[in-house]
Amino acid sequence: MKKRIDLNSDLGESFGQWAMGDDAAILQIVSSANVACGFHAGSPAGILETLRAAKERGVTVGAHVAYPDLVGFGRRNMDIASDELTADVIYQIGALQGLAGAAGTSVRYVKPHGALYNTIADNKRQADAVLDAMLAVDPALPLVVLAGSPLLEWAQQKGVKTIAEAFADRAYHSNGSLVSRREPGAVLHDAGQVAARMLRLITEGGIESIEGQFTPIEAESICVHGDSAGAIAMAGEIRRVFESRGIAIQPFA
Amino acid sequence: MKKRIDLNSDLGESFGQWAMGDDAAILQIVSSANVACGFHAGSPAGILETLRAAKERGVTVGAHVAYPDLVGFGRRNMDIASDELTADVIYQIGALQGLAGAAGTSVRYVKPHGALYNTIADNKRQADAVLDAMLAVDPALPLVVLAGSPLLEWAQQKGVKTIAEAFADRAYHSNGSLVSRREPGAVLHDAGQVAARMLRLITEGGIESIEGQFTPIEAESICVHGDSAGAIAMAGEIRRVFESRGIAIQPFA
Amino acid sequence: MKKRIDLNSDLGESFGQWAMGDDAAILQIVSSANVACGFHAGSPAGILETLRAAKERGVTVGAHVAYPDLVGFGRRNMDIASDELTADVIYQIGALQGLAGAAGTSVRYVKPHGALYNTIADNKRQADAVLDAMLAVDPALPLVVLAGSPLLEWAQQKGVKTIAEAFADRAYHSNGSLVSRREPGAVLHDAGQVAARMLRLITEGGIESIEGQFTPIEAESICVHGDSAGAIAMAGEIRRVFESRGIAIQPFA
Amino acid sequence: MKKRIDLNSDLGESFGQWAMGDDAAILQIVSSANVACGFHAGSPAGILETLRAAKERGVTVGAHVAYPDLVGFGRRNMDIASDELTADVIYQIGALQGLAGAAGTSVRYVKPHGALYNTIADNKRQADAVLDAMLAVDPALPLVVLAGSPLLEWAQQKGVKTIAEAFADRAYHSNGSLVSRREPGAVLHDAGQVAARMLRLITEGGIESIEGQFTPIEAESICVHGDSAGAIAMAGEIRRVFESRGIAIQPFA
Repeated sequence: MKKRIDLNSDLGESFGQWAMGDDAAILQIVSSANVACGFHAGSPAGILETLRAAKERGVTVGAHVAYPDLVGFGRRNMDIASDELTADVIYQIGALQGLAGAAGTSVRYVKPHGALYNTIADNKRQADAVLDAMLAVDPALPLVVLAGSPLLEWAQQKGVKTIAEAFADRAYHSNGSLVSRREPGAVLHDAGQVAARMLRLITEGGIESIEGQFTPIEAESICVHGDSAGAIAMAGEIRRVFESRGIAIQPFA
Repeated sequence: MKKRIDLNSDLGESFGQWAMGDDAAILQIVSSANVACGFHAGSPAGILETLRAAKERGVTVGAHVAYPDLVGFGRRNMDIASDELTADVIYQIGALQGLAGAAGTSVRYVKPHGALYNTIADNKRQADAVLDAMLAVDPALPLVVLAGSPLLEWAQQKGVKTIAEAFADRAYHSNGSLVSRREPGAVLHDAGQVAARMLRLITEGGIESIEGQFTPIEAESICVHGDSAGAIAMAGEIRRVFESRGIAIQPFA
Repeated sequence: MKKRIDLNSDLGESFGQWAMGDDAAILQIVSSANVACGFHAGSPAGILETLRAAKERGVTVGAHVAYPDLVGFGRRNMDIASDELTADVIYQIGALQGLAGAAGTSVRYVKPHGALYNTIADNKRQADAVLDAMLAVDPALPLVVLAGSPLLEWAQQKGVKTIAEAFADRAYHSNGSLVSRREPGAVLHDAGQVAARMLRLITEGGIESIEGQFTPIEAESICVHGDSAGAIAMAGEIRRVFESRGIAIQPFA
Repeated sequence: MKKRIDLNSDLGESFGQWAMGDDAAILQIVSSANVACGFHAGSPAGILETLRAAKERGVTVGAHVAYPDLVGFGRRNMDIASDELTADVIYQIGALQGLAGAAGTSVRYVKPHGALYNTIADNKRQADAVLDAMLAVDPALPLVVLAGSPLLEWAQQKGVKTIAEAFADRAYHSNGSLVSRREPGAVLHDAGQVAARMLRLITEGGIESIEGQFTPIEAESICVHGDSAGAIAMAGEIRRVFESRGIAIQPFA
């Protein structure tokens, strides 16, 4: 049984006058903050504010890189050329590094956002473009990856360290894949149930699939949400249950 | 008399499918490249290409930071809040640093573009916001500044090193200020005349003003253009004349 | 004493995944909706939804045109060339007309937003650029204008009909100008006090200035806000007081 | 044999300070101008200038609607939701209608651009979203469609009139489909050869496929390019050959 786990969440997703999420609240709970880099969300002044708050709370910062699609919030798949995607990702990591330095912290990992996250989990061309960007910036940067996805191996082939993650509020199939959001039961809403599932993930190394079978999932980080009061309550419950069992909430080293 | 001078020019100003300037040609002439950072011009893949070409030619790279105004090419004055301007400049320098590192080079100075350049030459609030950004990123970064402008002193007060620059193709008043582009004779077009003026700037420390008087100008860098065949020919003539007199074209410091 | 007045408010200011304002709630109160056109806020699908709701409630629609500045929410002054500003305003009115037609309604007036509103109240060059845009689209379109501002006369000179407006929650000087937001007391927060002031505006043709004098203000429309629960409550109180006195809330014809 | 044909080309694709294409030159040749609407290219002032030139030359104007992707020039496929795509298209047509009215002309047809054009040729969901937009704006607007594509029938099912088009400089397979740009020989460069092919298209109703067979293509319009000197020369040669044979270059009625 693990004695520690990382909790990560998306932050810095406000844009100009538009607010999104409660960064202050979720920073009380998570150990890692995936901070928007301006392509799907985040304007520089707001990102800087989030980074300062993360620094103050001692929360580790990662670059939440995305497709260039503000109006679609990076959730729409884009058939982007490899050299453009590589340069886009370098640009975003660099921009966040600049702001992180100004906030007295630094970028410690990369987690692609939305459609880019889903696409590179099993699209090798785009995955390679993202991995090439990471290697160009800093070969030591780890990539947060969907547990069980082909991307895990592609990253290892290129020498990029990975952090496998599980999603707290999502149902899984018995083969370890996520149940699509379009299917009923894909998203879990009961904080107690979710916290119990995540505890089992850590103590037993798996969860019960939507088909009713125990399904092993190897995860070093758990993704939680902070974009609603309910989401924050769920994340808080996970942390409470973990701490009550002596499981430390810590960033992956 | 100086034995060396820096020539700088704006590069990386293409955007997606839209080309601007002949970066390859101007890189044969200048010692410093002010590279667009994506706010007034420049998309990541194109910026990266320019940075690689600059690296290959041994040309020093600076961050050509700007207002967030693609459609206006950063040429329209914007009344932007100080904390937003500071964060915007940090973001741009960071993004360019990321891409520069991927190209095997680095960002060695900052030169604001267009309306931001003109505004901070004599608007202390916005000047301070830009200076704060530079200090937050790297206190050793120098700022390229209009020779004779109030910004020189404001930068020194904050401990930011400055590089005073003259404009090769612009007329000056006897008090050392630029003749406004709206006035006749503001822009010079004769390559031979311009090269002779710039030679005098170096050998005698000044040029003839539009009013006909010798006008001292202290400049460590000369700005030339690369956005037309005529501009490149003019820049080439300046370099030729300088080299024929044994004046080295070298980046400051 | 007037027997009718228009209440207007800003709507359609969400952008993609970012929500702003409670359009459904404010549509229960106002007679005119200033709908964002995509330059400071508003993405097409969200704008269309707002237009359909306005149509269903019988609320008149106006084009809330703005500077091209999403990240600054159109609140930053921009020194934009006249021909560009004219074309930008035509583009925005046209886009909203297209969406309004699809929603079964139409654009009946123009109200500039934020920095553009403030600038053209006393900057004749930019005012003329906006007026030229309106004349190019439809000479019958009226312009909502700050009561007492120079723009009223400039519009009349060009043959553009105007709708003078007062701001419900703002303090006025004795000369009829708005107290700057930077000064204490500029913004009023007590719904009862504001409703009483607006009632006096209609019954007596003026309000008490911040200096304590009765100040005449000629207004055909009153601007209220819908971006917070408090704002909506204030707007609702104004409507309640008006209706209790037999003053109809109606769009300017 | 036809006695008339439409020639169409993409115009208004400059953006701010970035120029693209020679609109003045191509307007001497074509009968229909597909004018950018600001989503893949085109800023309002430049679009307006193009529309005025089209009006002066008597060239018919169509809305060249696109995905919202300036940096990718609308050439990257996007998995956009139907209601968003419908609203995006309405917005663009409306914006162009506004500018066209100001230029004394009007929008007479719709031709999707780049990735959107290719996608809706055989993706029914996105095709329906575009068709719904056109019906919402004006059920009489025709849609320019790739000759032989499934979109022809989908449009007819919804009651949208279509204009089938052929591409002058592209090779075709014997089944009437375009040879992919990734294959050798996909793009033709010889102006004389291309003009002869297009003459045969009109006189015999087809062209020779890349496999060497006569291939019938039913087209009411021919797409030519204006983005290079060679492209304009090719378009001019097509027009010259057509006129020498008494074939009138006219917009589809």
